[in-house]
Amino acid sequence: MEFSEHIKTANVEDVVLRQPLQPPARGTLCVTGHHLLFSDREECASRQVLLLIRNIDAIEKSVENLSVYSAQFSKAGCGERPPDLSLQDQWGISSPEQHYKQTKELHNSWRLSSVNRDYSVCPSYPQTVIVPKNIDDDVLKKSAKFRQGGRFPVLCYYHRKNGAVIMRSSQPLTGANRKRCWEDEQLLHAVIEGSDKGYIIDTRSSQQAQQNRMAGGGFESKSSYSRWKRLHRQMERGKALQESLIKLVEALGDASHNMDRWLSKLDNSKWLSHVQMALLTAGLLAECVERDGHSVLVHGSEGTDCSLLISTLAQLIMDPCCRSLEGFLALLEREWVQAGHPFQQRCGHSAYSHTRPQQESPVFLLLLDCVWQLWNQFPLALGFSEALLLRLATEAYASDYGTFLCNNHQERWALAVTENTHCLFQALLRPREREYYSNSLHEHTELAIWPSVHPQSLQLWKGFFLRWTQQGRQLQEAQEEIRTMVMTLGKLALS
Amino acid sequence: MEFSEHIKTANVEDVVLRQPLQPPARGTLCVTGHHLLFSDREECASRQVLLLIRNIDAIEKSVENLSVYSAQFSKAGCGERPPDLSLQDQWGISSPEQHYKQTKELHNSWRLSSVNRDYSVCPSYPQTVIVPKNIDDDVLKKSAKFRQGGRFPVLCYYHRKNGAVIMRSSQPLTGANRKRCWEDEQLLHAVIEGSDKGYIIDTRSSQQAQQNRMAGGGFESKSSYSRWKRLHRQMERGKALQESLIKLVEALGDASHNMDRWLSKLDNSKWLSHVQMALLTAGLLAECVERDGHSVLVHGSEGTDCSLLISTLAQLIMDPCCRSLEGFLALLEREWVQAGHPFQQRCGHSAYSHTRPQQESPVFLLLLDCVWQLWNQFPLALGFSEALLLRLATEAYASDYGTFLCNNHQERWALAVTENTHCLFQALLRPREREYYSNSLHEHTELAIWPSVHPQSLQLWKGFFLRWTQQGRQLQEAQEEIRTMVMTLGKLALS
Repeated sequence: MEFSEHIKTANVEDVVLRQPLQPPARGTLCVTGHHLLFSDREECASRQVLLLIRNIDAIEKSVENLSVYSAQFSKAGCGERPPDLSLQDQWGISSPEQHYKQTKELHNSWRLSSVNRDYSVCPSYPQTVIVPKNIDDDVLKKSAKFRQGGRFPVLCYYHRKNGAVIMRSSQPLTGANRKRCWEDEQLLHAVIEGSDKGYIIDTRSSQQAQQNRMAGGGFESKSSYSRWKRLHRQMERGKALQESLIKLVEALGDASHNMDRWLSKLDNSKWLSHVQMALLTAGLLAECVERDGHSVLVHGSEGTDCSLLISTLAQLIMDPCCRSLEGFLALLEREWVQAGHPFQQRCGHSAYSHTRPQQESPVFLLLLDCVWQLWNQFPLALGFSEALLLRLATEAYASDYGTFLCNNHQERWALAVTENTHCLFQALLRPREREYYSNSLHEHTELAIWPSVHPQSLQLWKGFFLRWTQQGRQLQEAQEEIRTMVMTLGKLALS
Repeated sequence: MEFSEHIKTANVEDVVLRQPLQPPARGTLCVTGHHLLFSDREECASRQVLLLIRNIDAIEKSVENLSVYSAQFSKAGCGERPPDLSLQDQWGISSPEQHYKQTKELHNSWRLSSVNRDYSVCPSYPQTVIVPKNIDDDVLKKSAKFRQGGRFPVLCYYHRKNGAVIMRSSQPLTGANRKRCWEDEQLLHAVIEGSDKGYIIDTRSSQQAQQNRMAGGGFESKSSYSRWKRLHRQMERGKALQESLIKLVEALGDASHNMDRWLSKLDNSKWLSHVQMALLTAGLLAECVERDGHSVLVHGSEGTDCSLLISTLAQLIMDPCCRSLEGFLALLEREWVQAGHPFQQRCGHSAYSHTRPQQESPVFLLLLDCVWQLWNQFPLALGFSEALLLRLATEAYASDYGTFLCNNHQERWALAVTENTHCLFQALLRPREREYYSNSLHEHTELAIWPSVHPQSLQLWKGFFLRWTQQGRQLQEAQEEIRTMVMTLGKLALS
């Protein structure tokens, strides 16, 4: 039975729409098979809200009025239609091929492999990946069979300063019997050829990794991977992270005006601890690469969440190219969209939702929060503004663009997403948007930006978590003011 | 026995000076009867530190080196000597006379009284105060005898919009026998003539006020002051506030990297609760005056701490004139320096001190923190910058200026402070300083700025509490950047 067949009353008159920071509006509510429509009665300057039904988080019954508390509500309803983009435009801003081409230093010892051209080796990888030059595709195929979901080790970052690299993968399937895979060992061996050792940063505790081994997963044992040193850092993901966000959102909604209660609820949510742990582990990764000049392989279990999180943050810390607006968007495209972060499963609903699907988890939001902490600690170092992070946080949950649709490239390809939708990243680089999302105070620095992970230095991301409050609006106004000033300055300087 | 007679070794060679964010320097340390001097060995660009001995918070013995951890250390040592100020300059930027003269609306029903010209009526009041026109000096004298420390009710703010006023005083000395003072009642009666009622905001809990009554203090009973409605709001001051700051500073120094511990220590210090309570009570005061149009008398026990705190904050909330750089400094001069906040007793040492004198209490720092919260919530509304608040916080504890010396006007007069020192507020208004301490983003608004007192909206004042960290420096750089931009903009616009 289709959803539309459940609809008994399609139109309701005299509905009051309440949105944060806006006066209530009276109008007509209309339910269709896929959308909820509201249009008010004003002849001029009328308000229309068009909401995709699958984006509705929760509905609460109330005698007096219909209240929708979803924070995404107003944004999803007022989403812009991309007017000056054509579906013929190129989709995406960077591909593995381009990344390889641009990084000339790679060409000596690394190659592009199309072993996954039909997505059969690893369904969640793109068609092309970067691997050691002297490792052929057959080795990759065998390594893929030895890794969960076929996610064999691939290069994600090359550090120009010293040639050390960041690789990522999923866990090896050693299982209880401590199975070995010669090809996987050979592949990793090739990564650190000419160097004395490499590091594996495992985003699980040693105990968790052991448990996973009993369930068929595992880790790289010292005996089989003798030149790799394993470091375990327990990072939360999945359900634990989702629960953390839900607790934080509940704490934010507490209207008791009680400071003790707020601080204890904030503590209890553990959200800031997750932020801290992510920055701490990313810092460790960056230290191995930038300070010690060692190559690092990062993985946890599936290699689609925390691995991406810390590899992205480490690149921001080390590489000034990733800190420009364009560089950051390309980084996100490589490390999240192409690398197969399952956006559809992770960002189906927001923390306000009553339904809590198993796969739901705000890993991408955690990334944006961590990037904001960097931005907060180094206000001049990043080329993009807080507004960009806020926009990305919104788009990940409800978007008019195709970028965050599906769980991986294969699914996007099957649904022809690139032909039927617009690319968000391209839209964000149009002149007007580029100006809007740039950091007016940006000053390029070649230096690494080492974040402080002292709990005293980490803050609640007010711009996001309090964005529907009066304070959020004030902050926005101040940002606008700085932006206007810089634009005026630019124009005056040119004239 | 003088301090100088205790000095056994006046000069020590080969001393290493360590200061936050600066490389260590090797040199000579010299102790005199009043100063500690350090000068390094470099021929050029040499470093000299000159530290008043009474400003030293704590000395710790260490086998290897002399470490001075006082946060004030570097600032006090590197204090500027006011070069382009002359001792012949006018001292202070606003007097009660000027305040009266400027507020023309006052003249109908209020007058200047010199009843305190020889400081005999109230030692902690200035020579001139503003009182109701139809109340003569004899009534004031009698009221002063009925109030602790002689602090009879005086006007501190006139709200142009509706004619409501803020008065402040100390507690009435009703005592256990519920003594009355006809003159005091008459004085307060005159304040609300023509209106149906006034409010008394008592910064103590009802229970505390009762306790104070048993000890000879008291409050305005309903039977004696029938047209005044008393509201009690318990605000911490004195020792409790000092302990709170010490706990916060200890928490900030915790290097354990443990988020739970930090948040629980932050909570435990209660500092943010004090910030919240101050803003809440100031909001209540502003609501009575601005929204309800009622006059309010504010007092606790002595009327030299929390009363000044909330009357200052309420004026900032309501009155756009107080939000300019000059207006804010004049407000501080009126409400803190002239109103007799005992700076010397309250700000002798910082939170790092080992000695904890009874009278020590960071009420003024709490004010600056609350003003910062306003600034943080309304980044465009205040005409001064965070740098000004940081400067004031430093100057209150260790200053080259005379503004924060002594406990009241009488003491300053006895020591001829105005003849022998420079005025900080005037120094801050010289062209270069004025530019530096102005808020580049300031946009004048006539509206009241109602702060959010949700615990979620209040933040740790990182600029102050983390100012000796790397992060503090980054924030400063960003502020510098904005400032430079605005200056360039100004110059380009003029050319």
